[in-house]
Amino acid sequence: MCGIIGVSKHDEAAKVAFMGLYALQHRGEEAAGIASFDGKDIYITKNQGQVADAFDERSLASLKGYAAIGHSRYSTTGSSNIKNVQPFLAMHKGKPIAVAHNGNLTNTEELYLKLEEEGAIFQTTMDSEIFVHLLVRAKNGNLKDWMANALSQVEGAYSVVFLVGETIIGVRDPHGFRPLCLGKLNDGYILASESCALDLINAQFIRELEPGEMVVLQGDKLESHFLPTKGKARITQCIFENIYFARPDSNIFGDNVYEVRKRLGAQLAKEHPVKGADFVMAIPDSGNYAALGYAQELGIPLEVGMIRNHYIGRTFIQPSQFMRDFRVRVKLNPISAVLKGKKVIVVEDSIVRGTTSRSRIEVLRSAGAKEIHMRISCPPIKSPCFYGIDFPSKKELIASDHSVAQIAEFIKVDSLEYLSLKGMLDVMKSPGNTFCYACFTGEYPVKIPSNQSKYLLEGQKHINK
Amino acid sequence: MCGIIGVSKHDEAAKVAFMGLYALQHRGEEAAGIASFDGKDIYITKNQGQVADAFDERSLASLKGYAAIGHSRYSTTGSSNIKNVQPFLAMHKGKPIAVAHNGNLTNTEELYLKLEEEGAIFQTTMDSEIFVHLLVRAKNGNLKDWMANALSQVEGAYSVVFLVGETIIGVRDPHGFRPLCLGKLNDGYILASESCALDLINAQFIRELEPGEMVVLQGDKLESHFLPTKGKARITQCIFENIYFARPDSNIFGDNVYEVRKRLGAQLAKEHPVKGADFVMAIPDSGNYAALGYAQELGIPLEVGMIRNHYIGRTFIQPSQFMRDFRVRVKLNPISAVLKGKKVIVVEDSIVRGTTSRSRIEVLRSAGAKEIHMRISCPPIKSPCFYGIDFPSKKELIASDHSVAQIAEFIKVDSLEYLSLKGMLDVMKSPGNTFCYACFTGEYPVKIPSNQSKYLLEGQKHINK
Amino acid sequence: MCGIIGVSKHDEAAKVAFMGLYALQHRGEEAAGIASFDGKDIYITKNQGQVADAFDERSLASLKGYAAIGHSRYSTTGSSNIKNVQPFLAMHKGKPIAVAHNGNLTNTEELYLKLEEEGAIFQTTMDSEIFVHLLVRAKNGNLKDWMANALSQVEGAYSVVFLVGETIIGVRDPHGFRPLCLGKLNDGYILASESCALDLINAQFIRELEPGEMVVLQGDKLESHFLPTKGKARITQCIFENIYFARPDSNIFGDNVYEVRKRLGAQLAKEHPVKGADFVMAIPDSGNYAALGYAQELGIPLEVGMIRNHYIGRTFIQPSQFMRDFRVRVKLNPISAVLKGKKVIVVEDSIVRGTTSRSRIEVLRSAGAKEIHMRISCPPIKSPCFYGIDFPSKKELIASDHSVAQIAEFIKVDSLEYLSLKGMLDVMKSPGNTFCYACFTGEYPVKIPSNQSKYLLEGQKHINK
Amino acid sequence: MCGIIGVSKHDEAAKVAFMGLYALQHRGEEAAGIASFDGKDIYITKNQGQVADAFDERSLASLKGYAAIGHSRYSTTGSSNIKNVQPFLAMHKGKPIAVAHNGNLTNTEELYLKLEEEGAIFQTTMDSEIFVHLLVRAKNGNLKDWMANALSQVEGAYSVVFLVGETIIGVRDPHGFRPLCLGKLNDGYILASESCALDLINAQFIRELEPGEMVVLQGDKLESHFLPTKGKARITQCIFENIYFARPDSNIFGDNVYEVRKRLGAQLAKEHPVKGADFVMAIPDSGNYAALGYAQELGIPLEVGMIRNHYIGRTFIQPSQFMRDFRVRVKLNPISAVLKGKKVIVVEDSIVRGTTSRSRIEVLRSAGAKEIHMRISCPPIKSPCFYGIDFPSKKELIASDHSVAQIAEFIKVDSLEYLSLKGMLDVMKSPGNTFCYACFTGEYPVKIPSNQSKYLLEGQKHINK
Repeated sequence: MCGIIGVSKHDEAAKVAFMGLYALQHRGEEAAGIASFDGKDIYITKNQGQVADAFDERSLASLKGYAAIGHSRYSTTGSSNIKNVQPFLAMHKGKPIAVAHNGNLTNTEELYLKLEEEGAIFQTTMDSEIFVHLLVRAKNGNLKDWMANALSQVEGAYSVVFLVGETIIGVRDPHGFRPLCLGKLNDGYILASESCALDLINAQFIRELEPGEMVVLQGDKLESHFLPTKGKARITQCIFENIYFARPDSNIFGDNVYEVRKRLGAQLAKEHPVKGADFVMAIPDSGNYAALGYAQELGIPLEVGMIRNHYIGRTFIQPSQFMRDFRVRVKLNPISAVLKGKKVIVVEDSIVRGTTSRSRIEVLRSAGAKEIHMRISCPPIKSPCFYGIDFPSKKELIASDHSVAQIAEFIKVDSLEYLSLKGMLDVMKSPGNTFCYACFTGEYPVKIPSNQSKYLLEGQKHINK
Repeated sequence: MCGIIGVSKHDEAAKVAFMGLYALQHRGEEAAGIASFDGKDIYITKNQGQVADAFDERSLASLKGYAAIGHSRYSTTGSSNIKNVQPFLAMHKGKPIAVAHNGNLTNTEELYLKLEEEGAIFQTTMDSEIFVHLLVRAKNGNLKDWMANALSQVEGAYSVVFLVGETIIGVRDPHGFRPLCLGKLNDGYILASESCALDLINAQFIRELEPGEMVVLQGDKLESHFLPTKGKARITQCIFENIYFARPDSNIFGDNVYEVRKRLGAQLAKEHPVKGADFVMAIPDSGNYAALGYAQELGIPLEVGMIRNHYIGRTFIQPSQFMRDFRVRVKLNPISAVLKGKKVIVVEDSIVRGTTSRSRIEVLRSAGAKEIHMRISCPPIKSPCFYGIDFPSKKELIASDHSVAQIAEFIKVDSLEYLSLKGMLDVMKSPGNTFCYACFTGEYPVKIPSNQSKYLLEGQKHINK
Repeated sequence: MCGIIGVSKHDEAAKVAFMGLYALQHRGEEAAGIASFDGKDIYITKNQGQVADAFDERSLASLKGYAAIGHSRYSTTGSSNIKNVQPFLAMHKGKPIAVAHNGNLTNTEELYLKLEEEGAIFQTTMDSEIFVHLLVRAKNGNLKDWMANALSQVEGAYSVVFLVGETIIGVRDPHGFRPLCLGKLNDGYILASESCALDLINAQFIRELEPGEMVVLQGDKLESHFLPTKGKARITQCIFENIYFARPDSNIFGDNVYEVRKRLGAQLAKEHPVKGADFVMAIPDSGNYAALGYAQELGIPLEVGMIRNHYIGRTFIQPSQFMRDFRVRVKLNPISAVLKGKKVIVVEDSIVRGTTSRSRIEVLRSAGAKEIHMRISCPPIKSPCFYGIDFPSKKELIASDHSVAQIAEFIKVDSLEYLSLKGMLDVMKSPGNTFCYACFTGEYPVKIPSNQSKYLLEGQKHINK
Repeated sequence: MCGIIGVSKHDEAAKVAFMGLYALQHRGEEAAGIASFDGKDIYITKNQGQVADAFDERSLASLKGYAAIGHSRYSTTGSSNIKNVQPFLAMHKGKPIAVAHNGNLTNTEELYLKLEEEGAIFQTTMDSEIFVHLLVRAKNGNLKDWMANALSQVEGAYSVVFLVGETIIGVRDPHGFRPLCLGKLNDGYILASESCALDLINAQFIRELEPGEMVVLQGDKLESHFLPTKGKARITQCIFENIYFARPDSNIFGDNVYEVRKRLGAQLAKEHPVKGADFVMAIPDSGNYAALGYAQELGIPLEVGMIRNHYIGRTFIQPSQFMRDFRVRVKLNPISAVLKGKKVIVVEDSIVRGTTSRSRIEVLRSAGAKEIHMRISCPPIKSPCFYGIDFPSKKELIASDHSVAQIAEFIKVDSLEYLSLKGMLDVMKSPGNTFCYACFTGEYPVKIPSNQSKYLLEGQKHINK
């Protein structure tokens, strides 16, 4: 997963991009980068770490110009060394082209082979570099055709922003896998993965890009075009953005994420109530909103049974094994005074491997909870994602080969229930068939690559710096 | 404010101290340090930054030994350069003495003058260095008497841990201003500012130290002594630890902090209900528990009207002005879908300068809230603290010279009410007169210093490294 | 200027490359890099700074493999940010290609235009990247033909080493501008800019590569080929390597550099003796050997009139203005006890801008020298170099528009004489017409570029990291 | 060994100190520090590394004030972690006292015991801290008496500068072991270990301090006093400063170091000529001046048989074992073209362990030298130094238990001769009995400590930062 942002026409375009990335931090904590253009020169800064660490006053000041794109990264394609941090920048005929990409291409291998046959050399292992190679080969006509020509060759999930000279281009793939929205800030425009980035910079939300739409921003001018492939494919927006990934204060896919999650919790309460429970609690913070919806639906008190340590990020997203283990342990602390001797309903948004839930439940038991009934606000996750969510492989997904009863046994709860697929789709504002829910069903809407490694191009390259 | 920890008899004492400090991170984000002893040599590592940044695998490994003390620091006395990071370590007659201190002494100036007259030279501006100078001058008898003799000279607030050779000593001042608790881990003992640190390391909570108690830990042996000054002073535990500072999952001053905060919220609801409100919301996260108590007391729905960005620490605690401003803005984002057109009760734990509340309220209005009624779960804060809480000066405290009505006008709410002093004290488990509540009343239980600068000793010293 | 090295078949190829670069440090202090190959993967480390700083134990250990190339850099083409540090590494069809280059191409602009027309994108502004683009386009036949085909397109000065999989290739351009020699170490081969690198690693000197020669090293096998362009151009070895640039303990262009410099000094003494001088002294260390030759030729005592501070590198090579000024002042200290009241002959290897000589002379005067007669062991430098020596622009070269008498007046010496062009060429072992001496005559043996900026490709690119 | 400097009354006192330290770099490469005073506050910066690395523009700018002292350190007492870097700074009664010290005290242990008995605590293991503890205890009278009182308690070698408020005090111990000279710069005064520091900053050399003299500098005022102990002890200036340690362009102990070394070489030639040698060469750079004197005395040609790599400091001074080994190998490269088949006289200033000489000789042989006759410009070094020169222990000194013939065999030369003690003393300008030559004779002029470890106080302390 990644967060992207584009800024056209702002005196401090890079600072606006920085603040936008700050709001999109939850989409990628590993690295961040910004490229800007001042009418003459292009500037770029990229660093490992969270957004706040990847830039400082000095580096932001050096990113001059009125147009900028930015990227916060959680590696899907390409391992996370500094060379692979986005935006990717290259020169072609004296003109700089920078790209930032959210999603995952599915025909990467074919494209590499084709491009190398034509003499391309590769410096990174990122999808973004492919976009540039395709662009400089797409020769016919104006920028719009040039871009459409290049994009017609890629398959998979891509919400992407380009900086070509002073022009900012934003594209959402024809399936609309990942969100991308458009806002207005003074005279210029903003493109951002989620609307929460617009809120932070006081930009006005205009609308989400349509699947297959390309907007071209030049100063205060906006042109909208559609890719030739638009409309030829089913729209398959990632429902997991709603369940877990997007920020609750964002509006994506035509709905408010917080409201969606409360409705998922309420629907879960209808499908799977618990009798005689003392209270409902969430696994914080991911289960907070579903737990609130669940408690309100049934009129059961909501309590805080675990405290989240605010000095720690999301477990799901941290890459290093040592730190992950440590962070799981320090992340949540139970409150015995609340739990002791109680019958508790625990609401969580999803279960991936099951190991985290198991350790959380163990912690609740050790703090004195007498009965634990777990409720999950989505169906069992059975299949990996090839469109940008970094699930583990199929065999690591506990629901791929365990029944609900077996999972309940594994995580040691008194009962376990998941929301139904139909229940989940019914509470969405958009029709159910406009979503990708392949992680629950294994029915992939776009052909997945045969070589599924994310290190496709990396076999022979080790960079120390 | 600071967090302190002591570990006696553990194979990896420094790692245990590190984990404990991690749980005490909220008590001080500026710097952290650990000193350990392996029976022969003493080891020390100190660094600026949060606990997770101040140490790495390598530095933890180099902190050998079976006894250790640690400190996480938020500067009260001494500015925050590296020399002033605790523990303070010195050698005397070939024996290392290390100290870590939470609190604030009130007779620092007199002690400096006296010690310098006797030939002491000072390397830092920390209270901790004073403790060591007093110790090496306190000549009579055994370690216990030596320590009691030294401590009888200091006044003010001190929960403090010493490492003298392999002996760990923990002391809580006779007033009991700051918390300090004792736990057991395997064969050894743990001293920690709050019980949440014991939870994280799976230590068993034994009890809190009594005001004026000194425990001496040597391997698996524990001796308890009382300072000669014990019992001669009123016990005055800091009530602001309950309201704001301590972690909700800690048990301090004989009560659970989460439960206290819910009771404060419920009492607030009884004293100051709002009619016809659509819902109750907290300013997250400090107001979360009082808001929950408030909503449950009145049976009004609780909603999440603002999302907290998890990538940012507590505003109250960040020292740099630029970062503070930016962080205030990115910390909380309102959810328009929830707020639009609604009459809202907003619960917060306290108001200090009023500027933060004002900007929060402005944000809620801009997101569409129609009516905003603010409720505060403690009385108005009118006087600074000289015992370790880093409030601003009296004139910066808005309630020092504004009536509640004037504050309501300043922060632009439709109504504002505070919890009463009596209501606050009544919901505590300990009797009301065992608390210090000078910040609300200005009645200081221990004489405050005439020179109130925290940079007393710093006039002439600038250290770059 | 740069130093390059290639190592085939050694268990610790990268460490050998590191040691070789250490000996070539004088050819480039700005940055250094090494790429190695272990039969499966390629490894690369590049850093700013001197060789000893650019690598450490850990980074050397991570450069696994039995084949390696290395580079120490002083920027000629491409400004000195980290992206432009060599070796340049790219992937093509899953195969890594790394290049390290000493010299300066003269048809860079044409090559950029041609390659971009064919769809190339550029990541750096280094000549080395051009080599790789040419290589992956040169499709016919085997590696040897592939390489010859690519190299036939470049013009100018290039001594270059390639790492293509496990194969090391070394090439010296048909003019032979820069040195490149071949050595044997155990079973494998070494390529190095100068023979002093072979000495340091105890490799056996075999011979210098001929102008236009390409050697292909694979393990213990060596093949020698000639470029199609070999022999079509005049051999024009850089005479300034002999005068100033190469290390005195190296053998290049068929001669020992120390001996050459002593002969230049002796010839200078024959052409321009001084009567009645008290002693001869050098401007250390560049003038040391010519001064020795001068003194021995005339039987005048040699003294040390100035002490060089060993903690400082060559002024000529340091890029930062502030440090340059400071370093000029601290570099050399006169010994008054030696100079006071004396008539002194001062020998220097060359004068570039004249400002350094002027300040040195001033220093000698202030230390008490009564008469100063300066002698320069090469002719006046009148024209810049486009083949790899980083002279300043023509107008900054003092001899380009000042007579010898005017220069003498500028630097304030009692007399000034330069060695004659004929005298200089006569003392070389190789015939005079096998050298490039364009810096003295302005007659360039290879067409120079119309755009002479070294930042050709950089107009629009600013990289912070 | 260390270099010290003091600056009174200069607008940029710290920058002057920095430049002075730069000239004294050869006296200590491990760390450097400067303390300055601006009439109100004291400022200090200390770092590991060479002078040029220990400071930057920013840190120098922050060292405000018109009085400053500085120190470049090579550890003798106290291991080289950052806490032990000088100047040592402490506060006493609101007044800062900073000290920088060159030399080595011999009654450290007694002083520690005494001070700790009186309640002193120690932060470092440096002699300098002792000076401050003594000072704050020396209560009677004015600063002069206060200082004299304190200094009368220390024994051993000390050239030391103090910064007490705005007053600079310089003291040379009554034996005059280490040099210390006084200069004038504009209205103010400079104190420096060697005169070369005065040259670099264009200060005028006034004179050396006498043994036992104390100068007190306050702005443009200078007072000279004598310690009570002056004249009660034999003057014993360190003759090894002349032979090896001091810079050749310095004037110390009433003589010019370069001239002394040439005279030592000439005397060596008289005592031990070699018949039929082809030429004389030095081991550069330490043997350069003696070799020049040797060659001129006998009229034999001087050649450069080895090239010193300028990117490397003095072997003698580098502390890390790994780097020492590597640096020995890269430091000097022989020139075969000069050496092949020749009978060579090799002049060196001294032999310590013999291992370095042995490896140098081996290198010369491998480059083709046929006969090697080594000549040393001082007597055999048989005993360690307790007054500040960091020789190894007695058993590591090859001459302590090997005859000259055995040493010749060990280092594998055709002949080996040392200068005689009498010859050495005779060429000095000062009388022979005003020098310490205990390293040659073992007759120590001041009682040496029984515990000879330099880590006396360090047994139990490991500091990571």
